[in-house]
Amino acid sequence: MSSGGPGKPGALWKPVPRPVRDPDLPTAVRVYEVGPRDGLQAETDVVPAATKAELCRRLLAAGAGRAGLEVTSFVPPSWIPQLADAAEVSAAVLPAAGRTVALVPNARGLSDALDAGYDDVAVVVSATDSFAAANLNSTARGSLVTAATVTAEARSAGRSVRGYLSMSFGDPWEGDVDASRVATMAAELHAAGCATVALGDTVGLGTPGQVADVVRRTVDAGVPVTALALHLHDTYGQGLANVLAALRVGVTEFDAAVGGLGRCPYAAGATGNLATEDLVWMLHGLGIDTGLDLTALVRTSVWLAAERGRSGPSRVLAALSSQEAQS
Amino acid sequence: MSSGGPGKPGALWKPVPRPVRDPDLPTAVRVYEVGPRDGLQAETDVVPAATKAELCRRLLAAGAGRAGLEVTSFVPPSWIPQLADAAEVSAAVLPAAGRTVALVPNARGLSDALDAGYDDVAVVVSATDSFAAANLNSTARGSLVTAATVTAEARSAGRSVRGYLSMSFGDPWEGDVDASRVATMAAELHAAGCATVALGDTVGLGTPGQVADVVRRTVDAGVPVTALALHLHDTYGQGLANVLAALRVGVTEFDAAVGGLGRCPYAAGATGNLATEDLVWMLHGLGIDTGLDLTALVRTSVWLAAERGRSGPSRVLAALSSQEAQS
Repeated sequence: MSSGGPGKPGALWKPVPRPVRDPDLPTAVRVYEVGPRDGLQAETDVVPAATKAELCRRLLAAGAGRAGLEVTSFVPPSWIPQLADAAEVSAAVLPAAGRTVALVPNARGLSDALDAGYDDVAVVVSATDSFAAANLNSTARGSLVTAATVTAEARSAGRSVRGYLSMSFGDPWEGDVDASRVATMAAELHAAGCATVALGDTVGLGTPGQVADVVRRTVDAGVPVTALALHLHDTYGQGLANVLAALRVGVTEFDAAVGGLGRCPYAAGATGNLATEDLVWMLHGLGIDTGLDLTALVRTSVWLAAERGRSGPSRVLAALSSQEAQS
Repeated sequence: MSSGGPGKPGALWKPVPRPVRDPDLPTAVRVYEVGPRDGLQAETDVVPAATKAELCRRLLAAGAGRAGLEVTSFVPPSWIPQLADAAEVSAAVLPAAGRTVALVPNARGLSDALDAGYDDVAVVVSATDSFAAANLNSTARGSLVTAATVTAEARSAGRSVRGYLSMSFGDPWEGDVDASRVATMAAELHAAGCATVALGDTVGLGTPGQVADVVRRTVDAGVPVTALALHLHDTYGQGLANVLAALRVGVTEFDAAVGGLGRCPYAAGATGNLATEDLVWMLHGLGIDTGLDLTALVRTSVWLAAERGRSGPSRVLAALSSQEAQS
């Protein structure tokens, strides 16, 4: 309603979410940080390894190690040149207080991750043949077979495994993705030994009714809701509403990237991962414990923006960083 | 999970939300468009009256007249110079097929709006003394008295009145705003003759548990939920999650601004109103009827961005306008 008005808000006013609980929602949630890996791999500018390592240290200091910090991915540099420094970044970050995770698309990646000292790894499966062909040089079924093999090997080496199921809510080649197919593949991934199965809305197409539907079907297919995570992208701005819908059906782990790092490779100019700050604002507003320090997260994003010469698209970041600058 | 991959999605692929109903939510919602008024009044650049009128015509063609299009505000030009052309814009837009509304902060504004031919007007009340002092040159109680007087006059002239209650979810001077005070003032505004009471999250501080709590208290205080609307700003990215929480407690009218027009005067660089495109994506994804044409809305935003030289912050706009450019 305002055009500014004569007065200015008090300089000491610091906006914070006011906690009002919803008794139907969980009291604690794990926010799994994917900024250094999924965020930076999609950015077009190459970030120096030392900056990535410092980003990881700052995120761990903000509390990201409680649920997990995905540091990097051990993929062939020809696949993702942005992550060619995986070993260097890992050496600078590990050992760390808190849970650190490396993505491993195949046996070679797992071997590299074990050499680097990770206790936790993540594998990737595509729910669609198109995405499997484009990004994993495989089929949907083939990506599941590879992930199951890597998972078995990691577990026999005493490691815990997280399994991503990409394109669970829509695909830019195929459009709709069959929800019962997603549920079945998620159950297979869980049965193969993945402690957590992260359903990925890789393109950000999902809406709340769909998210609740896919989660319910996946639980019905045999995956305990406590073993489920949601990996949401905010391309169409639906991220937080989708989190809210998932909380209501019992999901307690959500992926996010600090500052909203990352881009959508299928829509130039569009945003990438759900921003950690925006997610934490909502969760703390709902009185849900995350173990994260929102102020430290915002400061981390402000620091990274200065390093990179541009800021992430997080709304909370935009609002709070300008507040910090004004005060 | 992707860095782009070798393949490109099909050029004919047009992303649309896939409708999956939630049986606990309403089947139809009114999306009340505030872009030309609340959006453009907060922008720093002055938009020509002819461009505003064309924006209104395009919005009406996209379906905004079903729930209501707030065209302008009849305020003293010294208050809001951006809206000094209220009479000129109104003359170019009215009469229109569909519901058009003008904001009238006082008796003089009402008189001007009646002269311009509006059947519907909106009045403003502040839930806090600070905002009333800064923006309405009054107190919270004083703003209610003025609004009640204007409402009575408008109704005796046969007009329908919408009442805004600003700062219902937090205030940048006072911080928390007492929810029971908001509920009481909303009930007074309704009792004064406002057919709709729009609870305003003027700063965008609200989170879903708080939104549900304030709505429930307002209904308990005597305002039928069918007479309630939510006027949300997306400063902290909470807009759609707050809509989802409000839908669950029965609210069926939401304000939004095409493209996410508007800014937050209390946080430089932050976003303003909830974007109509993002809201419509979610509602259509939930299988909720709005009567709006999403493609026409996006094209309107693309046109306006070309006129203004910059785009609004809507996520859907960013994703779909780049898709249109690629195809």
